Amino acid sequence: MIETVKLTEHYIEMIDQTRLPEKFVKLRIRTVPDMVDAIRSLAIRGAPAIGVAAAFSLALFLLKLKARTSEKTAGFWAAAVKALNGSRPTAVNLFTATHRMDRVFRVNLDKDPQTLRNAVWQEAKSIYQEDLDMSRRIGEAGNKLIKNGDVILTHCNAGGLATAGLGTALAVLYAAKQDGKNFTVYADETRPLLQGGRLTVWELMQNDIDVRLISDNMAAFAMKTRGITKVITGADRIARNGDTANKIGTFNLAVLAKHHGIPMYIAAPATTFDPSVEEGGGIPVEERDPSELTFFHGRPVAPAGAKVWNPAFDVTPANLITAFITDRGLITPPFRSGIRTKLGIRPV
Amino acid sequence: MIETVKLTEHYIEMIDQTRLPEKFVKLRIRTVPDMVDAIRSLAIRGAPAIGVAAAFSLALFLLKLKARTSEKTAGFWAAAVKALNGSRPTAVNLFTATHRMDRVFRVNLDKDPQTLRNAVWQEAKSIYQEDLDMSRRIGEAGNKLIKNGDVILTHCNAGGLATAGLGTALAVLYAAKQDGKNFTVYADETRPLLQGGRLTVWELMQNDIDVRLISDNMAAFAMKTRGITKVITGADRIARNGDTANKIGTFNLAVLAKHHGIPMYIAAPATTFDPSVEEGGGIPVEERDPSELTFFHGRPVAPAGAKVWNPAFDVTPANLITAFITDRGLITPPFRSGIRTKLGIRPV
Repeated sequence: MIETVKLTEHYIEMIDQTRLPEKFVKLRIRTVPDMVDAIRSLAIRGAPAIGVAAAFSLALFLLKLKARTSEKTAGFWAAAVKALNGSRPTAVNLFTATHRMDRVFRVNLDKDPQTLRNAVWQEAKSIYQEDLDMSRRIGEAGNKLIKNGDVILTHCNAGGLATAGLGTALAVLYAAKQDGKNFTVYADETRPLLQGGRLTVWELMQNDIDVRLISDNMAAFAMKTRGITKVITGADRIARNGDTANKIGTFNLAVLAKHHGIPMYIAAPATTFDPSVEEGGGIPVEERDPSELTFFHGRPVAPAGAKVWNPAFDVTPANLITAFITDRGLITPPFRSGIRTKLGIRPV
Repeated sequence: MIETVKLTEHYIEMIDQTRLPEKFVKLRIRTVPDMVDAIRSLAIRGAPAIGVAAAFSLALFLLKLKARTSEKTAGFWAAAVKALNGSRPTAVNLFTATHRMDRVFRVNLDKDPQTLRNAVWQEAKSIYQEDLDMSRRIGEAGNKLIKNGDVILTHCNAGGLATAGLGTALAVLYAAKQDGKNFTVYADETRPLLQGGRLTVWELMQNDIDVRLISDNMAAFAMKTRGITKVITGADRIARNGDTANKIGTFNLAVLAKHHGIPMYIAAPATTFDPSVEEGGGIPVEERDPSELTFFHGRPVAPAGAKVWNPAFDVTPANLITAFITDRGLITPPFRSGIRTKLGIRPV
């Protein structure tokens, strides 16, 4: 397993995902502002991994904090939570993690500093451990769907690099491989930042899974001529009706899959379902810097001054999704009731 | 108008399209092998432009040829035709152009060398002039479809750079602009070689047309949230039933457009319709070098040894196409009879 993020008493160690596959570099993050930068620059990315990294960052922050009163501690803490929450708007796991950390912090604020630090540290470790468990459970649930000879299309990176554990969509593939099944994977390169080509192909090759790289615009032709049998992606936030925000291009795949009669699966933990969002229109979609599209490694690939639209995510309507593969099993339509009963996700 | 390709008695001058938009460089091509390399490397690309370039190349070849017998001349000529025909397999205009040149060559082979050279030179000039005329006529035919306020999505580059004249899909936009209409364009960047971002955005900005760059995988989300009203692309080869080979990703757009109830137009001259091909399955699709996907400006963007599938084109089934915008007017379904009667395209 790839150790995507690790907490020590001095720093958080993470793989710098912007450098892969050219270089395998580990970052040591020591402060909240550095973690915010790492999340914004996508050194760490993937909804579950961001949640764990934010929790680790708060635990380390409190460990290092030298404040004389609990009032001052609470002030610094609130600022740290706010900074982390402001790093990226779309993935909900970030907010779920900081919210959990904040609750434990508040409950223990009036106890002695060591008890407070321990409680917060333990909560971060729990979030990490739960992330490992959820990967394993998603893998088990998804493995039941995989057949020998499957040709599976995936998008972006919903693998070990996107979680603390084995991933979401890719956890399914790792479980199927472990189970001795034979299958082939097509990986969308995933413009603009090529997480598919750089990270997913790298991860799958490391794990000896047969994978072919394609550009995103080859998906329809691959479905028609290369025998794609399933599409499996991760998710960044899922509304109560099943509408799913994920890396830009997921909506394309869902429409293409529907047209070709191919099932479209979303693999995600319960923490990616957002009880506060009724439907997809309520999910904020991050728009990122135009230079992600107009430059490549510092060289222009579009004319100077070109106008750009660069949403980092899109929202796939629930009616294009065949099923959710979650850490609590499969959820099939009707999604609203399945999400409510299986995951206990209710309006907040 | 951009002078994409120009014939002189010493060389063929062309814009090196691999260098745009970073550098505006003109190439001077003097030999058939150099033209074959230029076509293969995409220094010149776009189905109609390749046809004109091949015709020019043969005219110049004959002008410079010093063969003592007409038998020897015919032998060298046949080798030149064969080399050009082998440069790229998918776009049919190349074969149409070399076939026309070859016919004129054969008819005049037994006349004196000067008459032969003149006839061949004139045929190349006719192919060029007809290309200019077809651009203008496609523009006029397509302009009737454009409404004030349209938001038009296009793919790859079907502009002046893809023809001798104003293009095919983009000729429609230039005609509409000339006609005083207001509209906005979204341009797919078109991986792997970014002809949309590098060439289409450049051309449209040069012509003061409002354009926004997106990556190919943003199309579905753009259709849903940015009010796309039409998709217009070019074509590389069209079968008698209307199945259309065009730059990889066109099939994606056609499916997405259908899903969103948006009309999908293909702009192409009569020369792009291939009478020898009954349906899309009969069109050979070029697969290009994996390094187009795994490297970018010499730097790896996928792991060493990654397997790749890199088709340069896909085939859009006729039933996803709303109409063809041709130099002989619009062709609407049923396509088979429209293509037969309007264009005179019959089985050969």
